[in-house]
Amino acid sequence: MAKRLIPLFNRVLVEKIVPPSKTNAGILLPEKSTKLNSGKVIAVGPGLHNKDGTLIPVSVKEGDTVLLPEYGGTEVKLENKEYHLYRDDDILGTLHD
Amino acid sequence: MAKRLIPLFNRVLVEKIVPPSKTNAGILLPEKSTKLNSGKVIAVGPGLHNKDGTLIPVSVKEGDTVLLPEYGGTEVKLENKEYHLYRDDDILGTLHD
Amino acid sequence: MAKRLIPLFNRVLVEKIVPPSKTNAGILLPEKSTKLNSGKVIAVGPGLHNKDGTLIPVSVKEGDTVLLPEYGGTEVKLENKEYHLYRDDDILGTLHD
Amino acid sequence: MAKRLIPLFNRVLVEKIVPPSKTNAGILLPEKSTKLNSGKVIAVGPGLHNKDGTLIPVSVKEGDTVLLPEYGGTEVKLENKEYHLYRDDDILGTLHD
Amino acid sequence: MAKRLIPLFNRVLVEKIVPPSKTNAGILLPEKSTKLNSGKVIAVGPGLHNKDGTLIPVSVKEGDTVLLPEYGGTEVKLENKEYHLYRDDDILGTLHD
Amino acid sequence: MAKRLIPLFNRVLVEKIVPPSKTNAGILLPEKSTKLNSGKVIAVGPGLHNKDGTLIPVSVKEGDTVLLPEYGGTEVKLENKEYHLYRDDDILGTLHD
Amino acid sequence: MAKRLIPLFNRVLVEKIVPPSKTNAGILLPEKSTKLNSGKVIAVGPGLHNKDGTLIPVSVKEGDTVLLPEYGGTEVKLENKEYHLYRDDDILGTLHD
Repeated sequence: MAKRLIPLFNRVLVEKIVPPSKTNAGILLPEKSTKLNSGKVIAVGPGLHNKDGTLIPVSVKEGDTVLLPEYGGTEVKLENKEYHLYRDDDILGTLHD
Repeated sequence: MAKRLIPLFNRVLVEKIVPPSKTNAGILLPEKSTKLNSGKVIAVGPGLHNKDGTLIPVSVKEGDTVLLPEYGGTEVKLENKEYHLYRDDDILGTLHD
Repeated sequence: MAKRLIPLFNRVLVEKIVPPSKTNAGILLPEKSTKLNSGKVIAVGPGLHNKDGTLIPVSVKEGDTVLLPEYGGTEVKLENKEYHLYRDDDILGTLHD
Repeated sequence: MAKRLIPLFNRVLVEKIVPPSKTNAGILLPEKSTKLNSGKVIAVGPGLHNKDGTLIPVSVKEGDTVLLPEYGGTEVKLENKEYHLYRDDDILGTLHD
Repeated sequence: MAKRLIPLFNRVLVEKIVPPSKTNAGILLPEKSTKLNSGKVIAVGPGLHNKDGTLIPVSVKEGDTVLLPEYGGTEVKLENKEYHLYRDDDILGTLHD
Repeated sequence: MAKRLIPLFNRVLVEKIVPPSKTNAGILLPEKSTKLNSGKVIAVGPGLHNKDGTLIPVSVKEGDTVLLPEYGGTEVKLENKEYHLYRDDDILGTLHD
Repeated sequence: MAKRLIPLFNRVLVEKIVPPSKTNAGILLPEKSTKLNSGKVIAVGPGLHNKDGTLIPVSVKEGDTVLLPEYGGTEVKLENKEYHLYRDDDILGTLHD
């Protein structure tokens, strides 16, 4: 069960970032501020073949913080940790500080 | 939660323009005059790959005022401000004074 | 609210021609004779990119009188006047005297 | 209301041929013999652009007698006469004596 | 009503072969043995344009005996005789003695 | 009714292999062991034209034993024998001893 | 019934890995830890033809351990053993120790 996953085609393996529901000082955050659905890219596939045979690589890379759609993605459990697989064109954007 | 978003593919990050529901003089405007659904472009993706591999850039740019469709778009909250993501071909046009 | 709209892609901004429901002499026209759904082209987008990257321009131009489909089109209000946006391939034809 | 229509793309303007429901001698024809749904081509559009940008002209021409599908087509009224618009690939064939 | 039809595109005009429900000797055939749905090709269209503009001719020719699908086809009446129009890719095969 | 069928396009004419419901020794086989849905290829079409006009031949050949999908296929009766027509991309694989 | 299957096109024959529901020491595992849906690739098809005629080979190979989607796949019984056929683009990724 302890296995490393290499996604196929344009799939992206993402570990969701669970926002703290309390601040460091222990104050409960209102539900609205936790709404951003983001994750860290763990692994990416090689990309998709174009109609003329060129390989179009995946548009995000390992380590990127990404904004995820509210629905979709496939839940995957690896080494008792929960991950999600997305097609790269379902990922909305990359997040930067 | 305070993050900058760079959209992927042909996505466009838009901040909706909320029309004043009162005039400067304090007179309530009728509902009909507030109907124009417009926004300011905050960030754009790199564009979409064509079938023969050419990148077609997004047709609007940062700072453009755009006319938005009545439905669609994905709500995104960044630094407690509400934004919307649209595919560039869902944006109806650009508005100019 | 007083803005000029430049359509995106193959969209066409049309001002519908409202047929007189009375003749000049004041005689009420029967409903059937007012059925032609036409409009004047106010502005056109740059066109759509072909699969091999060529831009196919919009097939009507500013000032054309066009025959519109019975359904479809997006209502847009600019400077308190009502307009409609159509994809150019939804426009049925051009009308000439 | 008295206008000439030039169809767009691969659209074809057709005037339907209404078969006589009586013979010249005044004998009522049974319903079955009037079933052929044909029309005369009044005007044709310039054609459709192929995926590689070539214009494919419409496959019928002004004056052709055509066999029409039982359903479909858009009713258009010009100078108080009723016409129908069809996409050329919805037209079933041409009729010859 | 007495007209010859030239099909458009990849359409094929077929006259269905009605199997005898009695043998020559007058013995009634069971329903099952009459199930083969075949026809004779009366006329074919010029073919369909490929995505790169090449004309792909229709894959059957006048005089061929063809196996028809159980459903589909458009009934056409010419000179009081009943025919059917099929797209050539709906025809299942050609029958040979 | 006694005719030979040459399939069109990428169609494949298959005679289904009916597994014996008893062993040679007369022992009734349980239902599960008869589940494999296979057939013998009797005739194949010339193949399908690619988007750029190249003919892609059918991927099985006369005499092949093939694994068939559980649903689909068109029943055809020739010389009182029952056959099935499949598109070659509906056939799951070829079976070898 | 004892046959070897060579998949057609981009199909992949997979033998599902049934996770032990008890540990070696005989302790019953909770249901959650058995959720990973994986399999071993037994045979792969030749691949799919691209729009311009190039053969794109299947993206997994015999012996690969693969992550399978929760739904889909066609059950196949060969030599009384149960296998599943998947299109290669339905396979989520490859698993490595």
